[in-house]
Amino acid sequence: MHVLIVFCHPEPDSFNGALRDVAIETLTSQGHSIEISDLYAEEFNPVEGPTHFPNRADPDVFFPLTEQRHAFESGSLPGDIRREINRLERADLVILQFPLWWHAQPAMLKGWFDRVFVYGGLYSGGMRYDRGRFPDKRVICSVTTGAPASTFSRHGRSGHIVTLMWPIHYSLYYLGVQVLPPQITYGVQGGGLSYEAEAEFRERLEAEKSAWAQRLEGLAGESAIPFAGWSDWDERGMLDETHPWAWRL
Amino acid sequence: MHVLIVFCHPEPDSFNGALRDVAIETLTSQGHSIEISDLYAEEFNPVEGPTHFPNRADPDVFFPLTEQRHAFESGSLPGDIRREINRLERADLVILQFPLWWHAQPAMLKGWFDRVFVYGGLYSGGMRYDRGRFPDKRVICSVTTGAPASTFSRHGRSGHIVTLMWPIHYSLYYLGVQVLPPQITYGVQGGGLSYEAEAEFRERLEAEKSAWAQRLEGLAGESAIPFAGWSDWDERGMLDETHPWAWRL
Repeated sequence: MHVLIVFCHPEPDSFNGALRDVAIETLTSQGHSIEISDLYAEEFNPVEGPTHFPNRADPDVFFPLTEQRHAFESGSLPGDIRREINRLERADLVILQFPLWWHAQPAMLKGWFDRVFVYGGLYSGGMRYDRGRFPDKRVICSVTTGAPASTFSRHGRSGHIVTLMWPIHYSLYYLGVQVLPPQITYGVQGGGLSYEAEAEFRERLEAEKSAWAQRLEGLAGESAIPFAGWSDWDERGMLDETHPWAWRL
Repeated sequence: MHVLIVFCHPEPDSFNGALRDVAIETLTSQGHSIEISDLYAEEFNPVEGPTHFPNRADPDVFFPLTEQRHAFESGSLPGDIRREINRLERADLVILQFPLWWHAQPAMLKGWFDRVFVYGGLYSGGMRYDRGRFPDKRVICSVTTGAPASTFSRHGRSGHIVTLMWPIHYSLYYLGVQVLPPQITYGVQGGGLSYEAEAEFRERLEAEKSAWAQRLEGLAGESAIPFAGWSDWDERGMLDETHPWAWRL
């Protein structure tokens, strides 16, 4: 297996960095090859906009999708985007390693979605969902949160983690990849702890690292999250009320 | 009323720009004052990271929240963040005007959340939700989508819009502001239309602009989306199964 780890954290020595290292060690020892997109270290520019498209399809008005398609088709995509697409194409498994900031991926990783998932190249109206370009590619989000697990339960104060992950997972379904259930590590807080609390916290994090390593070892046998497809939707792009999927929350 | 419009689109002449102009015209004609955060025009940097914190609380390891709190308390927040906080503080109503890109706000606006909602300043463990700093501030998202409305229905192919807006709204609940139901303008696609389709499309957009103007005129009378508060959650940060809120989807 060739694995791409998209690492999004400003601090290499963060717990996100430790989880990245666990993935590298575990997967390498299993004989897999690894590639890293270290978005902060590589100073990825997450802001989609006209600066990236010197050869415009429409020089007067900037429509992002129009310019993405034009740049893809004319071979004038920016170098960083070509690099990221090549990395994506090579990978059998993609691990997105990031902290949950304001109930979503950090801007840096959001912009990686905005810029790398190129319209007319990686997807289009006819190349989405189960007609997508990457039907065999598997993607897993490994996410850290600050608040504890109970607050992310269905009735928790932080919001149900399933709902919070939905837009991210939906983007991946849209792209047509196989989305594995995410690895969520709750209650990761940096700094300001007492010595005793710090020691206990460190011990818990070691257990979380082991759990991640153990899961990675068996990842090849895991099934993706089920999702609807083109044969399920009607001409309005909706599920009929009688469709079994319509009764899934 | 003093109104802050946070405008996030790379193209001033986009339909998002037109909706921004509708808001300016409508609210000004009602005697309200307006301020604009034009994130692209002002080249806002959405990437939270160590470069913004020259005076570090912890020079060895970068914990974003630790540095945000330290910078706020020591008066060393970056100039752009102080400006955005001042704009937020002045505003009675905040309009977030943006397109839905990959099922969420563009990276530019996501980073505005990441960097401007400063820990230890705009919120903290004890200053969140209905104990937040801005209990009387009202916020509304005005969002455009590419796909048509039916696909964003509860059983739609694009994902239920209520679920897609949840993480963004949740961040606003967390900050403790009053969140108004969003204004969603569906099916806004730029470029590539035939002349006839373009004419029909333009006509529909004019109707959408009128609808937004009409809604803005009556916005002062609208109620915020109800949300749970500290008296609802137990010591685990959860709603009890018998709590009425636990039975809201």
